[in-house]
Amino acid sequence: MHSIVVESDGRLSWREVPDAAPRRGEVLIKVDTAGVNRADLLQAAGKYPPPPGASETLGLEVSGTVAELGDGVADWSVGQPVCALLAGGGYAEFVAVPSAQVMPVPDSVDLSHAAGLPEVACTVWSNLVMTAHLRPGQLALIHGGSSGIGTHAIQVCRALGCRVAVTAGAVNKMDLCAELGAEITINYREEDFVERIRAETDGAGADVILDIMGAAYLDRNVDALAQDGRVVIIGMQGGVKAELNIGKLLGRRAGVIATALRSRPVSGPGSKGEIVADVVANVWPMIADGRVRPIIGAEFGIDQAGAAHELLTSGDVSGKVLLRVGG
Amino acid sequence: MHSIVVESDGRLSWREVPDAAPRRGEVLIKVDTAGVNRADLLQAAGKYPPPPGASETLGLEVSGTVAELGDGVADWSVGQPVCALLAGGGYAEFVAVPSAQVMPVPDSVDLSHAAGLPEVACTVWSNLVMTAHLRPGQLALIHGGSSGIGTHAIQVCRALGCRVAVTAGAVNKMDLCAELGAEITINYREEDFVERIRAETDGAGADVILDIMGAAYLDRNVDALAQDGRVVIIGMQGGVKAELNIGKLLGRRAGVIATALRSRPVSGPGSKGEIVADVVANVWPMIADGRVRPIIGAEFGIDQAGAAHELLTSGDVSGKVLLRVGG
Repeated sequence: MHSIVVESDGRLSWREVPDAAPRRGEVLIKVDTAGVNRADLLQAAGKYPPPPGASETLGLEVSGTVAELGDGVADWSVGQPVCALLAGGGYAEFVAVPSAQVMPVPDSVDLSHAAGLPEVACTVWSNLVMTAHLRPGQLALIHGGSSGIGTHAIQVCRALGCRVAVTAGAVNKMDLCAELGAEITINYREEDFVERIRAETDGAGADVILDIMGAAYLDRNVDALAQDGRVVIIGMQGGVKAELNIGKLLGRRAGVIATALRSRPVSGPGSKGEIVADVVANVWPMIADGRVRPIIGAEFGIDQAGAAHELLTSGDVSGKVLLRVGG
Repeated sequence: MHSIVVESDGRLSWREVPDAAPRRGEVLIKVDTAGVNRADLLQAAGKYPPPPGASETLGLEVSGTVAELGDGVADWSVGQPVCALLAGGGYAEFVAVPSAQVMPVPDSVDLSHAAGLPEVACTVWSNLVMTAHLRPGQLALIHGGSSGIGTHAIQVCRALGCRVAVTAGAVNKMDLCAELGAEITINYREEDFVERIRAETDGAGADVILDIMGAAYLDRNVDALAQDGRVVIIGMQGGVKAELNIGKLLGRRAGVIATALRSRPVSGPGSKGEIVADVVANVWPMIADGRVRPIIGAEFGIDQAGAAHELLTSGDVSGKVLLRVGG
C-alpha cells in the first residue's frame, strides 16, 4: 500500500510501504479521507513522537470503509462506512485501529466529511463535558473559535444549551463563529478577553475555558473564570511554564486541567474507547439532526499533504483541513 | 449572651455581646462545643475576613442543641442534638445557621466530639470525592496526615477502599496515621515525598493529592501525580504563587484545583447545603458503624480559646482542637 512518509528534508511524499494488517481486536479500514491536525505538523517536524506501540505514520483520524476484521471483532462488518480516532497511521491507503475507536458515519454526513469529526468530537466532548462538567446555561469560552475544534465546540455548546464566547484573530473568523452560534466574539488582537468576558457577564466570568495557548494565557484564563470554573488546556502554542496564582484559583474554587487524547489507553476509565462511546451516544444524535455539522475549511488530495500542512500552519483557514486518499 | 471577641491587642476574651437570633430558614443552636480551625487563627490575626453577611465572630463549626427555629424551618425540632457547618459565629453561647448546614449528631458520637466533625467531614468529602472523584482502589496522598483534616481523610479513604499515603513531620504523628490506616507514611523533614510515592507505586504516582502547602509543593505535587490525577489545594501555608509546568500536567492529563468551604453559597450547585447533604448520606454511616471516628487532640474551656489557638499554631497536636462552651 501507499502512505505519506516524512523525508529527511521534511517533505511529505506518498510512497510504497508495507501493508497494514489488523491485529486481534482491530479493524482494517480502507481510507477514504484523512483529517489533518496540528499534532501532525508537530510530528512531521520531529517534535511530537507517536506514543509507544503506535504507527510512525502521520494521521489521527480517517473515514473509510471496513476492509477486514481482526480476530475477536464482532461490532463491525466488511464494507461498512465508518470513521475512526487513531493513535497514528491515517495518512495511508489502509489503517488498522482498535475496534473501540471506530464509529459509524453519522446520518446526513458525507463519508469524506466524516474524516473531520473524530478528533474534534472526541476532544470537545471529553474536555468540556467529561472533564470540565459543562452544564446547560453555563458560559464556555473557546479560544481559537474558528479552528476545527473551535467550530465544533461552538455548535456542541449551543446544542447543550450553553452560552458561548470565542476568541479569534480576524473579522471573517469572528463572523463564522457568530453564524455557528457564538454570542460573544472577541478579537484577541484588539481586545483583552478578560475585560470582555467580565463585561459581558456582569463580572461573573466563564464557567469553562477551552485553551490552546498554555503558558501565555494561564493567568488571564484564571482571571476570566467564574466561581467553580475550570480551564482545560489542550495545546501549548504560547509556551509550557507560567506562574500560577493559587490564591486567585482558591478564591474562585477553580481548577486548571491539561489533557491530551492521543496518549490515552484504548480501554478502561478515561480511555479512547470510553470517550468514543460517549461521543457516539451524545454527539452523533446532534449531528444526525443537523444541530452540529462538520465545518470543512479545505480539502486536498493526499499527494498535496505538504500544501495542506502549510495552509494549517499559516492560520489562513477556518474549520477542518482534509486529505482525500481514496474515492 | 457571651462570645469570644478579638481585642485590639489580639487577645481573645469571652464577653457579653448582643443575642443571636434565627432569621427565616435558620436554626438557633445553643452551643455545647466549638471546633477550632486554622482559618480561625488567620481571622484572629486579621488575615481572613469573614465572607459578606457572615458573623464577625470566630468559629466555623459547633455541636449543641436546637434552641429555636426561624420561620420556614421544618427539618429540626427544639432540643434536638445537632452539629453544624458555619460561615462564622461558633465561639459563642448561641449561633444562628441556615437549616441546610445543620446535621444530626452521628450515632455513637458524643455531643461534644461532634463539634470536631463538620469542617473535616465536609472538607474531605467535597474535595476528595465530589471534586477529585477519588475511586475505590486508587491512591490518595494526604499532606499533613496528623491534622484534623488528615486524620479524618485517612479513615474516609480507607472506608472507600482506597490506599492512603501521608506526609507528617514527627514519628508519633506518622504512627498515628499508620494506626488510622495509612499504608505509606512519609516524614517530610527527612524524605522527598515524590521519590517515596514513585517508589511505592512502581512509578505510577498518586491519583489524588490533598494539599495544604500551595506554592511550596505545587511542582512536586504535579511530579507525584498519576495519570489523570488531581491535586486539590485547600491551604496555602507554603505561599500563593508558583511556576506551573503545563507540559508535565498535560503529559499526565492531570489537574490542579483549589477550593474553599467557607465562601460557598448556602444552596445550589457546589453549595454548603449540597455538601452537607452528601456528607450526611455518605460519611455519617461510616461514623455510625465505627469505620470513621472523631480524632480529638485537645479540649479547652472557651475561656482558654487563646491557649487553644497557641497549641494549633505550634503544630504540637494531632487531630482536632475543641472549645467547650456549655455543659
